[in-house]
Amino acid sequence: MRIECIAIGTELLTTRRLDTNSVWIAERLAELGLALHRKTAVGDDRADLKALVEEALRRSDVILCTGGLGPTFDDFTKEVFAEALGSELVEDAQCRAELEAWYAARNRVPSANNYKQVLIPAGAEPLRNPLGSAPGVWWRDPAGFPGRRIVLMPGVPREMKRMWADHVQPRLAALAGAPVHTLRMVVGGVPESTLDERTGPVRKKHCDLEWTILASLTHVEFVVRSGDAAALEAARADLAAELGPDLVCTGSGDLESTVLAMLKARGETLAVAESMSGGLLAARLTAIPGASEAFLGGAVVYSAGAKTQLAAVDPAVLAAHGTISEQTTEALATGIRARLGATWGLAITGNAGPSVDPQGDVERANPVGTCLIAIAGPGGVESRRFVVPGDRPDVQLRAAGWSLDWLRRRLV
Amino acid sequence: MRIECIAIGTELLTTRRLDTNSVWIAERLAELGLALHRKTAVGDDRADLKALVEEALRRSDVILCTGGLGPTFDDFTKEVFAEALGSELVEDAQCRAELEAWYAARNRVPSANNYKQVLIPAGAEPLRNPLGSAPGVWWRDPAGFPGRRIVLMPGVPREMKRMWADHVQPRLAALAGAPVHTLRMVVGGVPESTLDERTGPVRKKHCDLEWTILASLTHVEFVVRSGDAAALEAARADLAAELGPDLVCTGSGDLESTVLAMLKARGETLAVAESMSGGLLAARLTAIPGASEAFLGGAVVYSAGAKTQLAAVDPAVLAAHGTISEQTTEALATGIRARLGATWGLAITGNAGPSVDPQGDVERANPVGTCLIAIAGPGGVESRRFVVPGDRPDVQLRAAGWSLDWLRRRLV
Repeated sequence: MRIECIAIGTELLTTRRLDTNSVWIAERLAELGLALHRKTAVGDDRADLKALVEEALRRSDVILCTGGLGPTFDDFTKEVFAEALGSELVEDAQCRAELEAWYAARNRVPSANNYKQVLIPAGAEPLRNPLGSAPGVWWRDPAGFPGRRIVLMPGVPREMKRMWADHVQPRLAALAGAPVHTLRMVVGGVPESTLDERTGPVRKKHCDLEWTILASLTHVEFVVRSGDAAALEAARADLAAELGPDLVCTGSGDLESTVLAMLKARGETLAVAESMSGGLLAARLTAIPGASEAFLGGAVVYSAGAKTQLAAVDPAVLAAHGTISEQTTEALATGIRARLGATWGLAITGNAGPSVDPQGDVERANPVGTCLIAIAGPGGVESRRFVVPGDRPDVQLRAAGWSLDWLRRRLV
Repeated sequence: MRIECIAIGTELLTTRRLDTNSVWIAERLAELGLALHRKTAVGDDRADLKALVEEALRRSDVILCTGGLGPTFDDFTKEVFAEALGSELVEDAQCRAELEAWYAARNRVPSANNYKQVLIPAGAEPLRNPLGSAPGVWWRDPAGFPGRRIVLMPGVPREMKRMWADHVQPRLAALAGAPVHTLRMVVGGVPESTLDERTGPVRKKHCDLEWTILASLTHVEFVVRSGDAAALEAARADLAAELGPDLVCTGSGDLESTVLAMLKARGETLAVAESMSGGLLAARLTAIPGASEAFLGGAVVYSAGAKTQLAAVDPAVLAAHGTISEQTTEALATGIRARLGATWGLAITGNAGPSVDPQGDVERANPVGTCLIAIAGPGGVESRRFVVPGDRPDVQLRAAGWSLDWLRRRLV
């Protein structure tokens, strides 16, 4: 069975957006044991899209499209498919009702062009979009193309992913062969190249499985696939043994959800004080549903006043050692822990750049990339200093991730 | 002139790896004022590639390929193009000498299949690859396809980029017309569909320009392109007049950088207290270099204790009105403003979900998606309540963006 993805949007052909949707879809297809044969990105141009759709209808059994379902002048995916298949667009009563309910729930009324979104090609089936106003389309055996499946989904990743889970995955699963099992393991605090070497023997021993290593700024992810669940379990056990405490979690979790779950299991709480990371650590923790069960809150101490007022840092410590110092970072961790009555206090200071005054004392002692992290807990307070590569967002993200991984190792 | 990219490699279809080559190439083309019309990723499959090459030859003037130039069995890009164009592969003496020199420099001898790499289609020109063993190909006006340019480059990004700079960029520059100018305008606080309607007349008046609308959760972006700088300026003026105070900025900025710049220009400062958004607003502000010149910091008040301890909220107010209330949100804004001595205090509370207790009093009064934002300033404090769609991260992001846009409108 030949499957292709089509991503629609001029922004995908400029440097403004990467087509991450088709990469995500390729992953989901692989989980179903289905292969993607081609993926194409095309601009918001009727003629270009029409030509591509006509080719795709000739060569592929399943066509998975993202984008061009919105209300604006440059959204015409449904129109183009209807044209290519000689079908009419017909208003779907339920879609219309849901559109109006969607707007009513937000105390707004649809504008005229929103109603374009409730037009569905005759013979096709609308797919509900609980996260947006544009329904998708599932079109099976269109006239003249028996056996074809056409799937039109929104380009907004969160809407596409939800629609995939609710409607597309179950329909494609019916077409899939034997299921492919996927194992995901997240590793913290170890560089990819080191992991690559350390896990070489395990991967060699289980070389009949499909291995992928995905590195990010805060962690490394192993994704292993096989049709043989027992072989996958054997690989998991060997990899877990090799990784030891470096293994953050197995399955769908991440560093944040793992630390929050560990704290919750221990009946402990966390408070943070962030200077250089500016709230990023708190934001990543509170992105996890139920974070409030273990995370009490924190302070973004972007000024001297904030450090003394919110995290109870002694002005004398600040004056004596400066912001980017072990002493101030430890005082922040201790201060926010006491202020919020938390089991653990985590603090981050440093220099994320860009370099403002390379000749200045501060930068000579604390070059761009300098991270100081401190953990205050029942056993007292300690701090670490390290320098990481990358630009401002990289440094902030690494500091947030590494501080969290350090706390995780304390909780193991 | 129609240009397309073809990325060749099964890994582009099976792993989470993004085809970054074609994004980099799109950027270089834009610098030359050349537009990319389509990009396709295809696996290491002869039949698939042949079909794609034959289509591309029919529809595009310039075909830019990456990958499939290596020595192994699954590298056959040159072979497939030669087949499609009825041309022979001929050994290139200089390429052979360079290949042998390349290996000699590494104290190695080429294996038999390495010599495959020095075969160049008759009528095409080899492109040197100082960083690898695979030469590229520049093929102009192949028999039967006058006016076509075919460029075959290695898939290894480092090698491709060097080859582009040395050989491809100068050749394409000769084809480039006048540079294309780009106008970018960011709009806050107006739904995409409303903007689409409102700006319809302006786009109609300037329909000779290339218009793109990019919607995100916190703002909408207009990207307009033209070779005619004066026409673009006229469109900018008309769009700015239509948008009025809804226009956040023109050029490369965003909501965060705009608000920080306005505050700095006025010599004013900002402090935030975030409950529902959990530090996201602070993180977005501190992602901007130099944020500390106007942003003093804030509190992530994810617990009652944090609200009273960090933002000086009167426990009686919390007890009487609860967390998700106008009174508590205004108390947070007033409290953090006073605590940090800021000109402006911005507070966010609400219910980002997921729904925990739909029958509970709190959720009946404050359904998932409820956002309360308050601004405390020299003129006093005021608050707003609204409900937004989406899942947890969406609601948090919208709340952060909308609160910032409200402050921006106060500063205009």
